[in-house]
Amino acid sequence: MLIAPLERRSIAVSSAGPSAELKERVHRPGYLKKLAKPEDLAPLFKNDDYVGWSGFTGVGYPKLVPTAIADYVEQNNLQNDPATKKKFHLFVGASVGPEVEERWARLDMIERRYPHQVGKEIAKGINAGRINFVDKHLSMFPQDLTYGYFSLKKNHGDPRRPLDWAIVEATAITEEGWIVPGASVGATPEILHTAEKIIIEVNTHIPDLTGLHDITPTLLPPHRQPYLITHPSNRIGETAIPVDPDRVLAIVESKLPDNTGDNAPETLTSRAIAEHLIDFLSQEVKAGRMPKNLLPLQSGIGNVANSIIGGLANGPFENVQVWTEVLQDTFVQFINSGKLEFATATSLRFSSEEFERFYVNWKDYKDRLLLRSQQVANSPEIIRRLGVIAMNTPLEVDIYAHANSTCALGSRMLNGIGGSADFLRNAKLSIMHTPSSRGTKTDPTGISCIVPFCSHIDQTEHDLDIIVTEQGLADVRGLAPRERAPIIIQKCAHPDYRDILMEYYERSLFECLKAGSGHEPHMLKNALKFHTYFQEHGTMKIDKWD
Amino acid sequence: MLIAPLERRSIAVSSAGPSAELKERVHRPGYLKKLAKPEDLAPLFKNDDYVGWSGFTGVGYPKLVPTAIADYVEQNNLQNDPATKKKFHLFVGASVGPEVEERWARLDMIERRYPHQVGKEIAKGINAGRINFVDKHLSMFPQDLTYGYFSLKKNHGDPRRPLDWAIVEATAITEEGWIVPGASVGATPEILHTAEKIIIEVNTHIPDLTGLHDITPTLLPPHRQPYLITHPSNRIGETAIPVDPDRVLAIVESKLPDNTGDNAPETLTSRAIAEHLIDFLSQEVKAGRMPKNLLPLQSGIGNVANSIIGGLANGPFENVQVWTEVLQDTFVQFINSGKLEFATATSLRFSSEEFERFYVNWKDYKDRLLLRSQQVANSPEIIRRLGVIAMNTPLEVDIYAHANSTCALGSRMLNGIGGSADFLRNAKLSIMHTPSSRGTKTDPTGISCIVPFCSHIDQTEHDLDIIVTEQGLADVRGLAPRERAPIIIQKCAHPDYRDILMEYYERSLFECLKAGSGHEPHMLKNALKFHTYFQEHGTMKIDKWD
Repeated sequence: MLIAPLERRSIAVSSAGPSAELKERVHRPGYLKKLAKPEDLAPLFKNDDYVGWSGFTGVGYPKLVPTAIADYVEQNNLQNDPATKKKFHLFVGASVGPEVEERWARLDMIERRYPHQVGKEIAKGINAGRINFVDKHLSMFPQDLTYGYFSLKKNHGDPRRPLDWAIVEATAITEEGWIVPGASVGATPEILHTAEKIIIEVNTHIPDLTGLHDITPTLLPPHRQPYLITHPSNRIGETAIPVDPDRVLAIVESKLPDNTGDNAPETLTSRAIAEHLIDFLSQEVKAGRMPKNLLPLQSGIGNVANSIIGGLANGPFENVQVWTEVLQDTFVQFINSGKLEFATATSLRFSSEEFERFYVNWKDYKDRLLLRSQQVANSPEIIRRLGVIAMNTPLEVDIYAHANSTCALGSRMLNGIGGSADFLRNAKLSIMHTPSSRGTKTDPTGISCIVPFCSHIDQTEHDLDIIVTEQGLADVRGLAPRERAPIIIQKCAHPDYRDILMEYYERSLFECLKAGSGHEPHMLKNALKFHTYFQEHGTMKIDKWD
Repeated sequence: MLIAPLERRSIAVSSAGPSAELKERVHRPGYLKKLAKPEDLAPLFKNDDYVGWSGFTGVGYPKLVPTAIADYVEQNNLQNDPATKKKFHLFVGASVGPEVEERWARLDMIERRYPHQVGKEIAKGINAGRINFVDKHLSMFPQDLTYGYFSLKKNHGDPRRPLDWAIVEATAITEEGWIVPGASVGATPEILHTAEKIIIEVNTHIPDLTGLHDITPTLLPPHRQPYLITHPSNRIGETAIPVDPDRVLAIVESKLPDNTGDNAPETLTSRAIAEHLIDFLSQEVKAGRMPKNLLPLQSGIGNVANSIIGGLANGPFENVQVWTEVLQDTFVQFINSGKLEFATATSLRFSSEEFERFYVNWKDYKDRLLLRSQQVANSPEIIRRLGVIAMNTPLEVDIYAHANSTCALGSRMLNGIGGSADFLRNAKLSIMHTPSSRGTKTDPTGISCIVPFCSHIDQTEHDLDIIVTEQGLADVRGLAPRERAPIIIQKCAHPDYRDILMEYYERSLFECLKAGSGHEPHMLKNALKFHTYFQEHGTMKIDKWD
């Protein structure tokens, strides 16, 4: 009996009783007896509790209970007094909708957040020192959670359970009490596996998505087994996530859609980058280094990703496969073009309009789409075996092909590393695409995305094959650092920065060869000068090297 | 017919005929007809040729033919004239014996070297700009070679073959003409697979090691299959490396031992580090996060690795497994202690004395030892599945747990990344161990191995769990950067640097929180000051932060 009797008594069963829609979705009658109102659940959450939510890239997250907890905190003015203040350790596969996560951040309800986040308020909390953000590869987060690595300091509750709570969204519940998720899987299997108490939000607005998911068991070493996947369409698991029914404290009915917002629109820059890339892939096919239908594609989020996938929908490749983390709107266009044969991911991050269309027709896509847990979707094992083509956007890349994916000017966290390194380390082709420059208030090209030395490094020189900007594409496969730098500068840097970067490289080369340290030439005293100059002058256009 | 008739004629069959020992080893009679003298083979190697050698960590490399080529170059004064000069693109799994690699480097015979090297002369050539060194994860080197990524600029020979030559050592040849390697596998399967012409040095001094190896086929996407390994002792392949006999140009008989030199002796520092680590592992077992017999161990090369393995031989754990890249002398002691159940690696890097003992008794170890290709030994797939405990030495670690494994002061290459990142990214426990400081000519603690910001980053903050020095052990699992820095400084830094590092952290924290960028606090203008100060003053003991 994991739940104290007092807590159990305090949950009033929803007086209205289950709706017809809910009864249609919940195939385990015992759960219907646990129907509760979110507002009755809210007071159960204690300060310092470890709370896991379903959700990934703003899709498939619980909406009612987290909102009810925020309402409870706000209405009772809990945060103004240290004695009543509630701060939680929050674990979600990736980001969730702003109406919940941003609100928790604004109310200072988040003590700690793992392993990814999106939103101004939460980034503000992290960078102001109020939220401890642990930025972990998305493939590793679920396993490290089950290992107990994130709860080493937890000193309450069942020591075998890293989480006190799991709050997850379902679109159906099986007879066994197992959960059919919404349009994301993420870390939900491991969050359910590790939580002492479970609350399920059954969403009757979203269709019953049974059959869209491939759920694999959470095995730990030394008992782990190979993932027997050799093609993106391979099914190796169940259609629902196993749950111990005794740990299910309550269910609530939800009718709220995922609050995803719009996809990032294409720009001239993103289109130019996509064109360079599609040209390059065509050349690789011609050279015999890539099959005619390519290899499975991974593509990040954002306008460049949208341009690439849009470009492929109109491009020369047929029977293309996708093995990725998240699918955006353009993937629907890609499927509809007849050129995409099969796509698998851990989340569908469509815009609201695309979701509404998709839900009406989703059975048409069912045989060409599969969602897996992030541990599987981002697994080095499968990415390397399949020979994925990985494409991601950094903040900045340096002249030797290290990349910064997370921290502006070395310190300010944007969103986290996500799955970028899971894919870039293991892909057959590791591609980073970025505009060559970004604008500031005073200078439309005040930030160069090609720098002498990254102010923070998440991807190393050992991991990247191709750097591409709207200026051009640098193929650094098999090149030593001294060969890489001139190519990256000449092909990728914005013309405003080309000469100054070449001067950095040439002076570094001269000084380091003289000193017998010329493998990867740097002038350390100048290595971060783009950044320090920017901090002082609001532009990276330095006057001279020291 | 890949070999031009002229070349084939030029190889005089060794007049003495094959020795009795050689006939005992070569079970394919056709190969005996190809017996040649190394000096007759040497002139066949042309400037700009792409040459692959067997060998890994100075073990199992070809000794006679590379030496004959060096002799030929030297005796004919070829390097003094640009018209006759011979420079080669050299591909070896990792490092080989100094008598060949160092000599090639000294004679300026190496244009390009992939993906690892050890030795003063070769490092000198790399850092002087004479050798292009491509530093690649050891698990990825063989696949990138077969992809053709290292021969994109090659414009001679059969375009399907990245290498012109493979020169490999064997201890036996099967009836099919397949190769039984010496005490390393490394990248030999892929080097043989990708080479146009093959020369085999059959070493009759080393015993016939048939049965020591597990050789898996080199499959490329989309045809790759899972490695069906769930325990270090699992065999999934052949006992010899497949070879196309038509591509075998010549064999030579060799009696030279591997020139490995001594293992690094233990020191007080290495023993203190090992003690911290064994204590920590005991605590993990006690906390239930680790089985009683631990999980398979990976350990690097060097005195700390020797102390750890020596410590385990006298330690509290029974039935231990090893899944690693290379086994050193102490592993024999570990096996003999009865506490090591099974070990698998890609190379045995024993001292000469230990090798002589081992070869006499090797059949006693046969059932507890298996050598695999580096693509398998270092495979992210298997490392993650098995939940390996990875332990490696960096040059320096920063206060947020990024590590530099390769380039001193950001630019001067030492040996290369090797397999460190293959293991550290995928292990269940990722451990970096280093002395807290190193001495210089003028200051016994002039170099701090804990720095504010690494001057080169090979391992990211997302990959490390434990940092340990002789001072203590910092467990940073699940910690945000602001939590990591004080712990790493207090537990791991040398006392001479503790205060100055804390001052860096505290001032960075203050400045970054004020600026709303406090996730991973840095003062960029001071971030590399330890290094620039060292360049000017020969010590990292700076007077003050700017």
